[in-house]
Amino acid sequence: MQNSGGAQPHNSCDIGVIGLGVMGKNLAMNLADHGYRVACFDLDSKRIDAIVAQDEKERGDQPARIVPVTDLTELTSALISPAVILLSIPAGAPVDAVCEQLIKVGINPDDVVIDTGNSLWSDSVAREKRFADKFLFFTTAVSGGEVGARFGPSLMPSGSEQAWQRVGPMLKAIAAKVDPQTGKPIESSTPGQPVTEGEPCAAYIGPNGAGHYVKMVHNGIEYADMQLICEAYQVMRVALNMTPVDIAKVFRRWNKGPLDSYLIEISAEVLEQIDPQTNQPLVDVILDKAGQKGTGLWTAVSALQTGSPAQTIAQAVFARSLSSLKTERVAAAEILAGPDIAPVSEAQREATITQLEHALYCSKICAYAQGFQLMKSAAQEQGWTLHFAEIAKIWRAGCIIRAVFLQSIAKAYESDSALPNLLVDPFFAEQIATYQADWRAAVSLSAQQGVACPAMMSALSYYDSYRTAVLPANLLQGQRDFFGAHTFSRTDQPIEEKYHIEWSDPSRPLQLIQ
Amino acid sequence: MQNSGGAQPHNSCDIGVIGLGVMGKNLAMNLADHGYRVACFDLDSKRIDAIVAQDEKERGDQPARIVPVTDLTELTSALISPAVILLSIPAGAPVDAVCEQLIKVGINPDDVVIDTGNSLWSDSVAREKRFADKFLFFTTAVSGGEVGARFGPSLMPSGSEQAWQRVGPMLKAIAAKVDPQTGKPIESSTPGQPVTEGEPCAAYIGPNGAGHYVKMVHNGIEYADMQLICEAYQVMRVALNMTPVDIAKVFRRWNKGPLDSYLIEISAEVLEQIDPQTNQPLVDVILDKAGQKGTGLWTAVSALQTGSPAQTIAQAVFARSLSSLKTERVAAAEILAGPDIAPVSEAQREATITQLEHALYCSKICAYAQGFQLMKSAAQEQGWTLHFAEIAKIWRAGCIIRAVFLQSIAKAYESDSALPNLLVDPFFAEQIATYQADWRAAVSLSAQQGVACPAMMSALSYYDSYRTAVLPANLLQGQRDFFGAHTFSRTDQPIEEKYHIEWSDPSRPLQLIQ
Repeated sequence: MQNSGGAQPHNSCDIGVIGLGVMGKNLAMNLADHGYRVACFDLDSKRIDAIVAQDEKERGDQPARIVPVTDLTELTSALISPAVILLSIPAGAPVDAVCEQLIKVGINPDDVVIDTGNSLWSDSVAREKRFADKFLFFTTAVSGGEVGARFGPSLMPSGSEQAWQRVGPMLKAIAAKVDPQTGKPIESSTPGQPVTEGEPCAAYIGPNGAGHYVKMVHNGIEYADMQLICEAYQVMRVALNMTPVDIAKVFRRWNKGPLDSYLIEISAEVLEQIDPQTNQPLVDVILDKAGQKGTGLWTAVSALQTGSPAQTIAQAVFARSLSSLKTERVAAAEILAGPDIAPVSEAQREATITQLEHALYCSKICAYAQGFQLMKSAAQEQGWTLHFAEIAKIWRAGCIIRAVFLQSIAKAYESDSALPNLLVDPFFAEQIATYQADWRAAVSLSAQQGVACPAMMSALSYYDSYRTAVLPANLLQGQRDFFGAHTFSRTDQPIEEKYHIEWSDPSRPLQLIQ
Repeated sequence: MQNSGGAQPHNSCDIGVIGLGVMGKNLAMNLADHGYRVACFDLDSKRIDAIVAQDEKERGDQPARIVPVTDLTELTSALISPAVILLSIPAGAPVDAVCEQLIKVGINPDDVVIDTGNSLWSDSVAREKRFADKFLFFTTAVSGGEVGARFGPSLMPSGSEQAWQRVGPMLKAIAAKVDPQTGKPIESSTPGQPVTEGEPCAAYIGPNGAGHYVKMVHNGIEYADMQLICEAYQVMRVALNMTPVDIAKVFRRWNKGPLDSYLIEISAEVLEQIDPQTNQPLVDVILDKAGQKGTGLWTAVSALQTGSPAQTIAQAVFARSLSSLKTERVAAAEILAGPDIAPVSEAQREATITQLEHALYCSKICAYAQGFQLMKSAAQEQGWTLHFAEIAKIWRAGCIIRAVFLQSIAKAYESDSALPNLLVDPFFAEQIATYQADWRAAVSLSAQQGVACPAMMSALSYYDSYRTAVLPANLLQGQRDFFGAHTFSRTDQPIEEKYHIEWSDPSRPLQLIQ
């Protein structure tokens, strides 16, 4: 192993990083950029060599900021006490294994271990309890991919407040920064020249588990957002007969309006890309089977379990599952009829594109509304106090769903922290009122043209359900009482009173059951 | 306790029933009707008295068929050896507790214990293993509510084949019966006059867990079916300005066509019912907050976890969650704008009703297709061999989703047991081809009219996704590779080859990653 720093002085490093994959390496370099001395360990010594080499290349004449260590004992002794150790390792069993190893090599009750992986939130809750007397188990979910990790991610830290006092300054330093006036990211992508001004995208979320829960919902929203963009693309591609490059131009235009966001921006970039091997648009060469790593699925499962209607997020997860049935779909395309309808005429194209823009915007509002509603339900169940304005703010930069419109969400929760739903915030209510006719037209078009828009449709039905004072669940409760004696409440009596009708008795007496 | 049978002869009863709630009592009486002598136990002695009294009333001059017992020891000694004991108790911990108690009072390895509750399928798998050396743990999921239990339920038995040899004749005897030609139930609702002809709605499903899994999916489909009916009702109610009685007439008419089913029939009955207290239609007095007991939720969670796109079932679960936000909805109805559109004109009413009928039919086909697809995925995961034609057949009578159209599903799987999806069966493909224009029109109408139809819309997008050879998941994979280096496969290369483009590099080299 190449060792750039000579013999390691004990207790000289501000933080240790375990795991030097793409994310761990970039977080370590980000810490180094902000003046922290970072002890780095990985089971693969090549990765240690690589980060030392990167540090040498980037730091110029400055002293080494990355201190390589060869095992966990060396790691802990390299750290200033009480220690801070950041884990960037696969979620699940490896986190427990490394924590146990740290206990073996010696760790103190006031040392902090920060899990930065995509851990299941309930695992984090369990770990906090499990390791409580050994060290301070802390988590910070990280969003923003590899570039975010390197130059400013969005961080969702949670754990004990004592640990937060210690690690908060470090995490705020490496986080993405936002111009508080515009809500836009302050960009830097130059090694060694970190952004130090602006509002950091890192705020204490709550006790352990809370940060990972919020990150999970972030990813669920991300699934919905991506799926909605894909649906708008597909309508333009199939029903409007447009090319990927044409559609990229539309996305670039949309990116100047209320849809201004990282995901719209990169969608344009993806659509502009030409495949170097075939010279075709790359998108047409990419196999249409969507992968997933589990966080969207977890969000949908949690929504079902807490009884929070995050249906657009769930639809996005199912859309990925369905896409993976490629062989079946190709066969079914030969068998199953589509509508007998001509594509939208050239003359109608621009008007339809505007309808789609507004449909995407309204649907996106609904997807975010569902995500915030889910966090609210989970907070009630778990006894967390979540600050939704703060959460919206830390998503304004660094993370995948960063978008100008998170500034409006932050404002909504700043004016009313107990807002029952984002939809009833005056700004968003007015936005949907303005654009809903186009939204309905776009959904209608997709139904008529046979272009699947599961997320857009589910968002519309979410909106229409939420604004409906009397849903047909009354008929449903009647059905349930009919076949299963499940009882029902009456609109004119206290909800606690449960009634049953003897449906099979011709005189059908109404009974108060409890 | 009233004791109608005098001192209990040992080893005289064919079966013991533990738990005499509505379901347990009715299953016991159903067994008695078929000539079995049933030892009955409940912790509540009043329930024991009640079934003895019911037996006395119904049997006339015949000898007692119900034998009351005061504890589990008396129960086991009352049974012919090897014993068969049927549990009708709440799912979950109580099942384990009673099994443990049976072991304490003495049970033999060749005795059979049948769990008839709505147990979570994975609990059943665990119980089979746990009790393997103590007794034969068997399950039979029961559908059909209290009337079904009394006069013929649909049964989904699973467990060891050895146990099935023993209990199969009993379960087939008490199950609902179907006319094999028409696929229609052979009805009886007269105590003591059981149906003995026809095909029984009880077939061996597979090893333990399989029966409860199939029942769970049955319930998931039931959720979707009910929700779809409610949506059709709501469109008629809101967009067509029809009364509950008018809509009941439509349902009675639909019940003579391809939608002929128990759920349509009881929906008409619910809508015709007048509230004895207010003289209004009862449906308008029933509070529109839908309850749920968990099986629909389990189905949706299982669909997410196995990656099987059962989105219409999930939408139905979410629709119930959303309905429960009554206070929020009533407030939102004052704030959130709906479309500015007149209801459908009287002149268009009949045509619209026909569109709705076909929309409901096509959506229903999709919901069932999703359920069968989910069972197929689960069977692959669990190593079960499920016979889908048999499953469709046992749902033709006795259960809540019984419908003429299950005969067509059975035929589809009889012609091709490896059918990848119900949608590509020639009959169903042709049905949807015929009716899809109306389906699309109805979805479009609901979007324009602002009547939430989450399940109908999700069914349409399921159909349109499934028949699409190239979905926009290619753009999505591009997005994922852009921000997370998640890689993609190419349409022109083996799927195992994963590619990545260096998006931030202006020359963007394409790399083969693995």
